[in-house]
Parts: sequence; structure tokens; C-alpha cells
Amino acid sequence: MELIESAKEYQDQLEYLKGNIGKPAEVNGYVHRVRDFGDVVFIILRLDRGLLQCISSDSVTGAELQNLKDGMCLRVSGVVHTEERAENGFELIIDKYEILAKPAAQLPVPLGKKYMGLSLDTDLPLRQITLRHPIKRAVFKIQAEIANAFGSHLTSQGFTKIHTPKIVSAGAEGGADIFKVDYFGMPAYLSQSPQMYKQYMAGVFGRVYEIGSVYRAERHNTSRHLNEYIGLDLEMAFINGMNDVMQVQTGALKAMVESVKKNCEPELQLLNAKLPTIDKIPSVRFFEAKEIITQITGKPPKNKFDLDPIEEQQLCEWAEKTRGSEFIYVTHYPSKKRPFYAKDDPENPELALSFDLLFRGLEVTTGGQRINDYDEQVQKMNARKMDISLFDSYLTMHKYGMAPHGGLGMGLERLTMRLLNLQNVREASLFPRDMSRLVP
Amino acid sequence: MELIESAKEYQDQLEYLKGNIGKPAEVNGYVHRVRDFGDVVFIILRLDRGLLQCISSDSVTGAELQNLKDGMCLRVSGVVHTEERAENGFELIIDKYEILAKPAAQLPVPLGKKYMGLSLDTDLPLRQITLRHPIKRAVFKIQAEIANAFGSHLTSQGFTKIHTPKIVSAGAEGGADIFKVDYFGMPAYLSQSPQMYKQYMAGVFGRVYEIGSVYRAERHNTSRHLNEYIGLDLEMAFINGMNDVMQVQTGALKAMVESVKKNCEPELQLLNAKLPTIDKIPSVRFFEAKEIITQITGKPPKNKFDLDPIEEQQLCEWAEKTRGSEFIYVTHYPSKKRPFYAKDDPENPELALSFDLLFRGLEVTTGGQRINDYDEQVQKMNARKMDISLFDSYLTMHKYGMAPHGGLGMGLERLTMRLLNLQNVREASLFPRDMSRLVP
Repeated sequence: MELIESAKEYQDQLEYLKGNIGKPAEVNGYVHRVRDFGDVVFIILRLDRGLLQCISSDSVTGAELQNLKDGMCLRVSGVVHTEERAENGFELIIDKYEILAKPAAQLPVPLGKKYMGLSLDTDLPLRQITLRHPIKRAVFKIQAEIANAFGSHLTSQGFTKIHTPKIVSAGAEGGADIFKVDYFGMPAYLSQSPQMYKQYMAGVFGRVYEIGSVYRAERHNTSRHLNEYIGLDLEMAFINGMNDVMQVQTGALKAMVESVKKNCEPELQLLNAKLPTIDKIPSVRFFEAKEIITQITGKPPKNKFDLDPIEEQQLCEWAEKTRGSEFIYVTHYPSKKRPFYAKDDPENPELALSFDLLFRGLEVTTGGQRINDYDEQVQKMNARKMDISLFDSYLTMHKYGMAPHGGLGMGLERLTMRLLNLQNVREASLFPRDMSRLVP
Repeated sequence: MELIESAKEYQDQLEYLKGNIGKPAEVNGYVHRVRDFGDVVFIILRLDRGLLQCISSDSVTGAELQNLKDGMCLRVSGVVHTEERAENGFELIIDKYEILAKPAAQLPVPLGKKYMGLSLDTDLPLRQITLRHPIKRAVFKIQAEIANAFGSHLTSQGFTKIHTPKIVSAGAEGGADIFKVDYFGMPAYLSQSPQMYKQYMAGVFGRVYEIGSVYRAERHNTSRHLNEYIGLDLEMAFINGMNDVMQVQTGALKAMVESVKKNCEPELQLLNAKLPTIDKIPSVRFFEAKEIITQITGKPPKNKFDLDPIEEQQLCEWAEKTRGSEFIYVTHYPSKKRPFYAKDDPENPELALSFDLLFRGLEVTTGGQRINDYDEQVQKMNARKMDISLFDSYLTMHKYGMAPHGGLGMGLERLTMRLLNLQNVREASLFPRDMSRLVP
């Protein structure tokens, strides 16, 4: 009975069972599929991770098992037995089973099939159920690993985890793309980024990171926009320049990919995903990038001061072909295209010390060095004709002394999407929020 | 120069310097205090963690250092030198320094004093600055450790990290205490708890946890309520009863306290905090608790079906005195006082399989077993005269088969508050949100 108890403690029950061939074991799971061959019945049990083939024995006959229905929740005990034809190379011969819970209706989607073949419009409204499918949930097992690896790598680099408010009095990024909240009669908004707060906290702990919700009320309905997403943010003080930030990012990405590789092998196989190799990430300046794209297309760019999604893809293809990297940094963006808090390049104030990281054709990170000097920030705000009185609280940080600092924000869903080659960012969000979706 | 470079990588620079007595080192920090003795000037440098005494040398004389002002940001290099009179037992003899940033105004609060002695009304509006004080920031170093330990302990127990939406279409807990959001013209709310979503995800991964924002629009202005806080939530399937959940919680608390003890010794000293010893946490049933309190006070309780804050304190005092524990579980609350999703005790349906955890006089956790059966849930909703059609999406989970499960939610700020014996929960929130506070 000792074995039985400990099996339950294992998230990875398959791994545990594999090490206990020939021994008794007990597992919990859902009936994923029933294959009835008359005398013999195979139950494919969906465990918390992976599928387990169970088979009727002398003590529990096929006749008893024939009435099991998809979605029933079972506790099964039996003996682990080598079986080369089973997917895992072993199966469980059922000695005893108990029905822990029964569904009240037949499953609305074919959970037991290898591929459900659902459109997003069918999948998303039934997400509570469709996420139970091994391929769907694999995405989020990997996403959890990414988020955890981000946190633990940064902790190892002296970063402190912070939690900052998401109900705020003003938008960090400005603009109209902001959700309004009724806060006891006061006008309030949902945070577009922890920007200001992480900067404050870089003045407290030096190095900080946050994993938290970010809200964008953008009226976009594309495959790469969500209105609520998870930001992986970091901010670090005492930097010598934005390169320090980029180096930390490269290190974090390596750690994240390594962790996924190490801990999510079954999920990577299910998703048929190929992880990128990260060595040194190449870096080009914005205007160099524009020239490269012009050379590729043979046409002058439509917009001189921004990269559009197609150009991002072209640049990524170039990086892969010429530098062997699926990532590329674009640095020194035109200052006017970057936020008011971005530090301008002293060598050319029309450029900001600011970067994007592109990965497999998509922008996954924005970051850079921030202005830390009070007068410099006030001047830049004035030059942009901003109402400085609205930024009293923000400027408090600069006024009383703030170290040179910089940071970045990464979108967890976009990163997951690109890492796993998903087609739509909604596939990388458990319960996505878009312009028409609030349920479930 | 090698040493100098690596010193910057250390969050705990003091620890690093301590191991390099007699050697050259470079550190970054803010001028925390200047003590001018004419020929000799002492600079107390505020590092990312801890304070470092620096002293003028032959190469950098007192005269040069006299003009340094509080809040200036410095890069200092010199030699680490044993000095028993210095707080850390060593100091840095300054060879060279560079001013990295200057404040534009004099500090508005006495950051350099051991105790600032600020009221919350002075502290909170200047939080960007006051958090730089060693005692204030110590709270959040410990809070970060608590949150990280929660996550890593649960990961070790087979839990998967999840991120669920905070913009929702309905309140999990019901009631009017909910913030409204304008979501593209649709009525939407800020999540009062990840309750429904973590239950869904327990149907996917078996064991899940989330560290995320929680919103309560309660019109309370007390020392223990916040309108936005961080929830430490977990949910687990295949439980045999709520005891399984309580056991996981006890294990998590042990891990959290152990981590704080191991990694936050300097902060615990600064805060003069005494961590609790957690062995077996005693547990009483709700009505037993009421009897115990009646025996203590000699008076019949005012409210038979709830514990008020004073009773929670009395119960905690009793637990400490008679069981030697600063924690106590109260179980089997009256069903009508618990949410609609709480599973009732089959032996007495007037009681819910639901618990609170009290710590040093305060409720820090609510949890229990949930209803997993569809019919049972519909019946309970009907008995409460709830409009079932509003819960279509929620009931989807039950309808298609859901394992027995349970979970809990803990308030990170309340836990921090009690662990460190803070007087007001606002002291345990970086940028607290209360009925009148949205800035900073």
C-alpha cells in the first residue's frame, strides 16, 4: 500500500509507474477512451499528465468495464506490466476500480481523439473542457515552465519579485487604449504596464521582476493581440547601458528554453515543437534593419519610422539565414516612436536607447534604458508638450535621485505562441480576452 | 578588476564583500547618510540590500566627499577593510568614486535615519521614496520570499502554475462588492477570486496554483482590508476530503517560513520579527470554537453563526496557550455562511466542508472541498434560489465530469502582515489600494 499512496503525490504519474514495472500501483484519472474488444476492454485513462493504458484482468472483467463512459473519474489499482504495444511501453492491469465522479452529459467535444480538430470558435467557449485534451493542456504546462524559469533565473541573478497595483490613476503608455474602472466614484484605469511601478522598485531593490496582468483596450482583432495578457517584466538599476538589459534578457531566454527542454519533453513531443537554439542573439540598429529589408524587397519602405509585421518577418528570416538565429534585437528606434520615458542616445537624440526583440517573425519584447535624471525627463516631456502636472507622482522618483536604469516587458502568451509555433495567440491563453470574449 | 565586475552581480553585496576582506571591490549605491568629521568623512552607502560604511582615504579626502548629498547615486571603489566599529564589521576605504546620478531636490523624508517615524498618511503618498528605507523594503524582500516559496513548494508537490483572467463576466463570490469595468461596451467586472478558473484548471492538471491580483470593492476602511491584493491560490483534484487541502497548506506554510528564515535573516533582524514554529496545526470545528470562546469569556456569543475579529483573536490566544500553535484551523462552518460552491458535510448538511486558517488573531486563508457533482451543485443553487442560467459556463465543468476537489486562497499581504507583526495591512502592500488611495 505504500507505493499506492506515493503514486498520488506524483504529478508525473507515468514516470513513477515506469519505475515500478511489476509492482502494484494506484492511479487517478478520467476515462479518456474506452476500447471494447468484448472479453477484453482497454481503458485509456487521462492522468494529470499523460495517458495510461489500463486493461481488464481476471478480477475485473471486460463486462464490468463496458459501461464506463468518457469523462468518468476513476481510481484504478492494479499491477504495472510491460507492454510494448502500449504507447508508454507499459500498461496497468486492473485489479480494482472505483468511480469517483460521473458526468451528467455526454462530452460535447471528442476529447478522446488524438486531434480534436476544433476551430477556435468551438474551442474557446468550451475551454473549461477542451483544455483537458492532452495537446491543449501541453501548451500550458510549457507556459508554466516558461514563467517559473523566468522567475527562478532572475532570482539567481539578484532580482526581487514584486507585485504592483493594476488599478491605477493614469495610463503608463498614454493613449486611449485603456480600460476604465469605477473606483469608488474616482476615475481609474487598468494598468497598461507596470512601467512606473517597476521603475520605482528598481530604486528600492536595484533589480526587480514582476509576472502580472497587463491590459490593453486596443480594438484589434488579430491573431497576435489579446486585451488581457501576462507580462514578464523586469527592471534593473546601475546599468551601463541598454546592453546590460539585453544581456540579462538573453540569459533569461536561455534559462527558459533550457527548462522547457529539460522538464517538458512529453509536451514538446505532443506539440511537435522545435525549440530554438540561443547562443549570441544578433542585434541591428533600426535604420540598418530598414536598409536590410529594402535590400531584400528591392523596394523603399512604406513607413520609414516603424517596422510593420511583414518587415518583422523579413528581418527574422534574414537573421536566421545570415546569422543562424531565430531571435534578433532591433535597437536605436526613432525616439519619436518610443515612450516619453525612453532615454535618448546622447550621440544622436533622434534615436532612443530602446530595443525590441523579434522571435520567429514576431515582436515578443520591448525594452530599453529609461531617463533617470529629473531635468532630462522634464525637458523631454516639455518637448512633447505633455502636461507635467499629471506626472507629479512619477517624477517624484527622479526628483530625489534615481540610478541609471532600464528594463523590458515580454508577453508570456506571445512567447509561448512562437516557441510552440501556434497560429493564434488565443491558443496560448487559458481563457483569452478579446473584443468579444469574456466567457468563460 | 575581476572582483569588481562580479560584485555588481550580487544582490547581496555585503555578503560578497565580507568574503573579500583586504581585496579591492566596487559597489553601487545611494548616499544614505554622510558623517563629516572634517578630515575624515564617512559615507553610509545604501546598497540594493543592506548599508555599507565607506570612509575617505588618502586618495579621496574628506574635503572631496564633504559635498556629497543624501540621495546621490554613486559608484565607489576601494579596499574592503575590517572595522569592528562598523555595523557589518567591515568598511570600504574609498579609492575612487563616481557620481552616477544627482537628486534635483532635498529628500522629503529622513531616509538616512534608523527609524523614519512617519505616519501612514505621510508614508503612503511618498511610497516611491519611503520604500527605499531599509526597514520598509525589508518587508517586501520577505514578501517576495514568501511568494516564491509558495510557488516552488507547490511545484515540488506536482502543482502547475496558472494565469487566469481578471476581467470577468460575473463575480465568483456574488454580492455587490465588485468593481465594474467598461469592456468594449459589455458589462464586466474585476475578479474577486480565481475560484471558478482554478476549479476548471484542477480538471485539467489536477493540481494548480496561481499568484495573482484579487479585487474587492468592499467599502471598508480598516487596518486589515485592501481593495486590491495578491491572492495565493491553489486547487487540487482527487482529494479524499478537505484534510488533504489542509495538509498541503500546512506543508506550504512550513516551506514558506523555512525559506524566509534561511534567506532573509538581515531583514528579520531589521524588523525584529519572530517567525512562528509550525509543527502540526491544531484544528477545531466551528461550533467547538464557539464553545471554547464562550468558556473564555463566560458570555454567550452575539452571533452564533460567525466569528468576529475579537473572537478570532481569543481563539488564537487559546490555541497558543493550550496547543502551543500560533495557527489554528477552524472547520465545518455553517453552510449558509459559506459560498454556494462549498460541499456540505454528508453527515450534517448544515455544515460545510470548509475551513479558515487563523494566524496570530487574523484569518489568512479560506478553503475547503468544492461540490464536484453536477446534480448536487444544481440542487444547492436551487435551494439558495440562485438563477442557474447565470452559471451555465461554470456548471459546464461539473456537467462533463469533475473529480472531487478542493482548494484555498490566502492573502499574501495579510500573511506578510502577521508574519512580521505589522499593525496595518497597508504596510504589507507596496502601493496599497484603499477607498481613497490610487496614487502612487
